Amino acid sequence: MNHIEWTGKELRILDQRKLPGQIKFIDLRTIEDCYQAITSMQIRGAPLIGVVGAFGLALLAYNIEAKSKEEFLERVVKGVEYISNARPTAYNLKHCVQLVFKAVQSQRNVDLMKSEAIRKAIEIMNTEEEFSRRIGENGESLLENGDTVLTHCNAGELATIKYGTALAPIRIAVDRGKCIYVIATETRPAQQGARLTAWELERYGIPVTVVTDTAVGHLMKKRMVDKVIVGADRITADGYVFNKIGTYQVAVLAKEHGIKFYVAAPTSTFDLDLKHDAVVIEEREAKEITTIGRKRIVPKGVRVYNPVFDITPPTLINSIISEKGIVNPPFDKNISRVIGNRT
Amino acid sequence: MNHIEWTGKELRILDQRKLPGQIKFIDLRTIEDCYQAITSMQIRGAPLIGVVGAFGLALLAYNIEAKSKEEFLERVVKGVEYISNARPTAYNLKHCVQLVFKAVQSQRNVDLMKSEAIRKAIEIMNTEEEFSRRIGENGESLLENGDTVLTHCNAGELATIKYGTALAPIRIAVDRGKCIYVIATETRPAQQGARLTAWELERYGIPVTVVTDTAVGHLMKKRMVDKVIVGADRITADGYVFNKIGTYQVAVLAKEHGIKFYVAAPTSTFDLDLKHDAVVIEEREAKEITTIGRKRIVPKGVRVYNPVFDITPPTLINSIISEKGIVNPPFDKNISRVIGNRT
Repeated sequence: MNHIEWTGKELRILDQRKLPGQIKFIDLRTIEDCYQAITSMQIRGAPLIGVVGAFGLALLAYNIEAKSKEEFLERVVKGVEYISNARPTAYNLKHCVQLVFKAVQSQRNVDLMKSEAIRKAIEIMNTEEEFSRRIGENGESLLENGDTVLTHCNAGELATIKYGTALAPIRIAVDRGKCIYVIATETRPAQQGARLTAWELERYGIPVTVVTDTAVGHLMKKRMVDKVIVGADRITADGYVFNKIGTYQVAVLAKEHGIKFYVAAPTSTFDLDLKHDAVVIEEREAKEITTIGRKRIVPKGVRVYNPVFDITPPTLINSIISEKGIVNPPFDKNISRVIGNRT
Repeated sequence: MNHIEWTGKELRILDQRKLPGQIKFIDLRTIEDCYQAITSMQIRGAPLIGVVGAFGLALLAYNIEAKSKEEFLERVVKGVEYISNARPTAYNLKHCVQLVFKAVQSQRNVDLMKSEAIRKAIEIMNTEEEFSRRIGENGESLLENGDTVLTHCNAGELATIKYGTALAPIRIAVDRGKCIYVIATETRPAQQGARLTAWELERYGIPVTVVTDTAVGHLMKKRMVDKVIVGADRITADGYVFNKIGTYQVAVLAKEHGIKFYVAAPTSTFDLDLKHDAVVIEEREAKEITTIGRKRIVPKGVRVYNPVFDITPPTLINSIISEKGIVNPPFDKNISRVIGNRT
């Protein structure tokens, strides 16, 4: 089962909000469909958001009826602006949309621009799959037989095209005969660890135990965790990692207990231009905290604060695993050295 | 509205599992009713569990029909064993049940033993209320006008008879004209912060904001927290604090960010005999993590690990607030000095 597929006409995606209860696919046919899938979190995960954003722009471009190249490009530029702002924190979205835009611009006429948009989106999708596989191969060397690895949120296949980012090294290690045990944090508010990481690892036959986000410190103190691997939504040139809320505190706790903390991400996650203090931390609606299913948890009228990403500084990170290799500190020097030349 | 009341015949309690959705009272008439209310978490919070345990034994004693003092005491001893094991981690339960048992033993005949059991349980309830008020008065001095205080779990009125432990200093400070803002962590798995702390503070008109357990580190990093106060389920003579799962990591994060971390607890929480590594950490059923309301979050068949308490070492604690005064480090000396003489 592929959770994302280009059918030749539309992008078919698995609605991740329905997991684990229901397997439901949705066809995305327009840029608005893609925007909606991203903002409503039918799909999530930085690399996957990037790919769906790229297809959003490609679908727009392919369906524009314009009399001139200028009119066509004007509408594409509006599309770039629109889809890039579907979510603010993940870098991959902006990056992948720009890749499609640049590919379109490089063509001579409208017909070529249209087909190039689709071709480029497909290429990005294939490239992201390849990146994930290589992240898995590179990161696999960091895992020893018998390791228990804690991961926060979902940075598995569902967050990418295949393999995942944080989960890719684990899958490759298991494929190569290592026994790896996974602890998945629930990851409130949207519970991607409990719902998605547990779901996919169970399907692969990799042993996974779900714990509440409150149990991380206790587990580490009891030496029940050997390593931590998480994904990322954006990594700045000086090594600040933006990822799901709760990542920062897991990193602090890992350092406190002498546990290695690794981040796995493809090139498309690296933001080599913006400073970390200029990145917008997305805040989402109160309902993610106040209500689960139909059950109201927080009394009516009580305020909630729901930032959904946080920033882990480079001092808390042991290595960053990319498709181009493992980046070690000092990150401000080594990230640009290893990642410098983007594809 | 009193959430707990002795009517003269039965113990009337508010069913805390139903909050915030529903206000439902239950009458406890037997030791079995009390046991059930404790194990099912209709009531929770270490001081409150202690009081309900005391009434459980008192109700048993009062209703025993025995031919001799020996037969009577034999059945009381079985009751002590039964109710003391309703939950393993909180010290208050064992302590308060012992207080009733000793009071019963001190009487000459069965009739006096029966009435003494009830009298002692009522006295314990009143004493716990008085302890909480004094904890509030002692702890109030630690709070400054304008402080934002983070608390984990519910250590408010609902966890005690009145005032609370961690929330008592906040309530007294507000009564005395200080502006105090509270951040309540959701506190998975049972969500006492989101459901109960938010509910009671909202009723008192004290501003409260609910956040996920994953947001604590981010909030501290952003300097949105001035102080932390939590309750306790057991405090050993050398200053190890047993409290709701997640407390330990909040304490690690507070230290990392230079934020004062306070623990508030009455005498009945102090275990001056047992070593901290001999205390049993309760693990509860998987369902608390896998399902919220009727919504299944964790896929079927996936393992969960659900320890519901953790241990915060004395090195992470700035002060312990008791009804007898504020205990400062070194705790291994000062706890026995301040708490030494129990009531």
